Amino acid sequence: MKKRLFTPGPTPVPENVMLRMAAPIIHHRNPEFMEILTRVHADLKYLFQTTQPVVVLSCSGTGGMEAAVSSLFCSGDKVITINAGKFGERWGQLVRIFTGNCVEEKVEWGSAIQPERMAELLKENPDAKGVCLTHSETSTGTAADIQTLCSLIREQSDALILVDGITAVGAHEFRFDEWGADICITGSQKGLMMPPGLALVAISERAQDIINHKNGIPQYYFSLKKALKAHAGEDTPFTPAVSLVIGLDEALQMIKAEGMENIWTRHERLASACRQGCNALGMKLFSNSPSFAVTPVWLPEGVDWSAFNKALKNKNGITIAAGQDEYKGKIFRISHLGFYDELDMLTVIGGIERALKDINFNFQVGAGVTAVQKAFLEN
Amino acid sequence: MKKRLFTPGPTPVPENVMLRMAAPIIHHRNPEFMEILTRVHADLKYLFQTTQPVVVLSCSGTGGMEAAVSSLFCSGDKVITINAGKFGERWGQLVRIFTGNCVEEKVEWGSAIQPERMAELLKENPDAKGVCLTHSETSTGTAADIQTLCSLIREQSDALILVDGITAVGAHEFRFDEWGADICITGSQKGLMMPPGLALVAISERAQDIINHKNGIPQYYFSLKKALKAHAGEDTPFTPAVSLVIGLDEALQMIKAEGMENIWTRHERLASACRQGCNALGMKLFSNSPSFAVTPVWLPEGVDWSAFNKALKNKNGITIAAGQDEYKGKIFRISHLGFYDELDMLTVIGGIERALKDINFNFQVGAGVTAVQKAFLEN
Repeated sequence: MKKRLFTPGPTPVPENVMLRMAAPIIHHRNPEFMEILTRVHADLKYLFQTTQPVVVLSCSGTGGMEAAVSSLFCSGDKVITINAGKFGERWGQLVRIFTGNCVEEKVEWGSAIQPERMAELLKENPDAKGVCLTHSETSTGTAADIQTLCSLIREQSDALILVDGITAVGAHEFRFDEWGADICITGSQKGLMMPPGLALVAISERAQDIINHKNGIPQYYFSLKKALKAHAGEDTPFTPAVSLVIGLDEALQMIKAEGMENIWTRHERLASACRQGCNALGMKLFSNSPSFAVTPVWLPEGVDWSAFNKALKNKNGITIAAGQDEYKGKIFRISHLGFYDELDMLTVIGGIERALKDINFNFQVGAGVTAVQKAFLEN
Repeated sequence: MKKRLFTPGPTPVPENVMLRMAAPIIHHRNPEFMEILTRVHADLKYLFQTTQPVVVLSCSGTGGMEAAVSSLFCSGDKVITINAGKFGERWGQLVRIFTGNCVEEKVEWGSAIQPERMAELLKENPDAKGVCLTHSETSTGTAADIQTLCSLIREQSDALILVDGITAVGAHEFRFDEWGADICITGSQKGLMMPPGLALVAISERAQDIINHKNGIPQYYFSLKKALKAHAGEDTPFTPAVSLVIGLDEALQMIKAEGMENIWTRHERLASACRQGCNALGMKLFSNSPSFAVTPVWLPEGVDWSAFNKALKNKNGITIAAGQDEYKGKIFRISHLGFYDELDMLTVIGGIERALKDINFNFQVGAGVTAVQKAFLEN
């Protein structure tokens, strides 16, 4: 059976990227690899829309988040974190462990932090040294208005702005320099269309300054000071995941050829068509501020997640994501982050129709795929 | 030009491993991947000769060392480290950062710590909570007698034994359970014949006990407590480097098919032939306790490293490793760790002859390759 992945990481890897990674391994001190890493460093700046360094760490996205928290803050530093889902919660866990002083703002799943509330938080905590945000919260398929939040935080305070862009970079418009973020992290297995194993961290000038002059939390592998020093010599502080860096080079060429604006527009269109397809099948959307990376949908009443998922996976070869934590069995999530096009949305909604039919859910056959077609062809 | 890698990591990756990693990506929560990870967990026990868990971390080998130090010790814990080269030095850096109480024993490059000196160190430091050893020190191509050291430490003290097996596992005999080590680490790009990006950490029962009951140094991504908990459910705490884990599964099948004893013997034979080849060319060996993973050789008087290396790399496609730190330009290192056979030793010594000829070094053409042939065929 043909298999199709619609999960928010790992996301599908293009054939040319897979084949590039399958070439004989080269040594990381070899001029050939150093040329690749130099190009990757340059192209990552384009991805994040920055002139500042973007360092490559060999770890998952979480490692990138830890690197930021443990490199920027000292023990006792007050940091505000926004918990609107599983990954916002992770910011809080990291801050509690590494600084021990976390002001965690909980936001209902499916909603994003509102700028008004952010302004209040800053007023209540004028001594906050940082604010940790999530651009696209994967667990809830919800996007925050990072541009507005960044500009508001910059106006009101000196707090550093850390953005988890793990499932946003490459899906949502994001301009690191212009918007004034201090840290933005993404992972290779997301918008970058790569297997997991690399975290990419963009670092602002003022963040670099702090990183280079601070003696703070004990750290070694995740020291952004070490990473910045190595970056300046087009190097990495420890043996990098060579094959993944080579694949990243290939993926970044595809991204440059398509262009960031076009990529953002594509994701917006895919997400919109996906939502319209789900609506047309009588299903309710979960988020009131939907992400362009992943669409979360309430399981219709009477539909059992396990039966639905089995029909989708075993009979149609399609893998989507379940709900997480308390939303397990209540919502499902369709990803369209990375290497997807308009016909892929027809496929996933068509597959969902087939699975719904299989479990005897009552809906109008063809309504979903027609909505998808209309979304693309009549707009 | 055909390219041949003789560096101690990355080491060559077999074609079947490369192709297995080039297959379409699967999700890490997919039953197909969980089956692979379960098998990898089981086969890693065979690799380390242990019945205890071996956890898979997505990072370089250094990340595995950090995970061990930060998971086992508390701030202030005294730990003895043996610095007989660049990687033994790293143990010291990690201990100083994470516990702040390091007793570092420096050993001349090219030599290994002697059991008598180890016994003295333990007597001088009866309060040591751990001892950090390096099985095969990559920077000096020197192997320590880990079996004797482990048994001596176990007899004399309660200190935990941490073994950096990064370039030893799969080259040197190593029996985790029988020898009584508490931690052993390797990296994917070494004896495992894989690209870099994974660290594998074996954990003894008493180490597990400490890890699970200690509240120590702030850590998150490198928490072995989290890794052990996930391992118990055949899982990883964070998104693993999926494609590398799949490649590891393939590599471990090759290792099982060959058998650990055969692999150890093969490496011993390759190393011995390599040394005899170098000797026959009039070159002096650097180490007085040579590793089976990498052979360090003094550059003959009058031979310039850069000219020699250029002749080797640019005209013969062969990459070997330079000396590190103060031995840069003074020694070179030939690796035979991982996916190498007897004809490969003929190739590398033959290539070295060609390069020496090219730079007008005076030697008997054919002496090196003859010595290699004799080493294999007349023993």
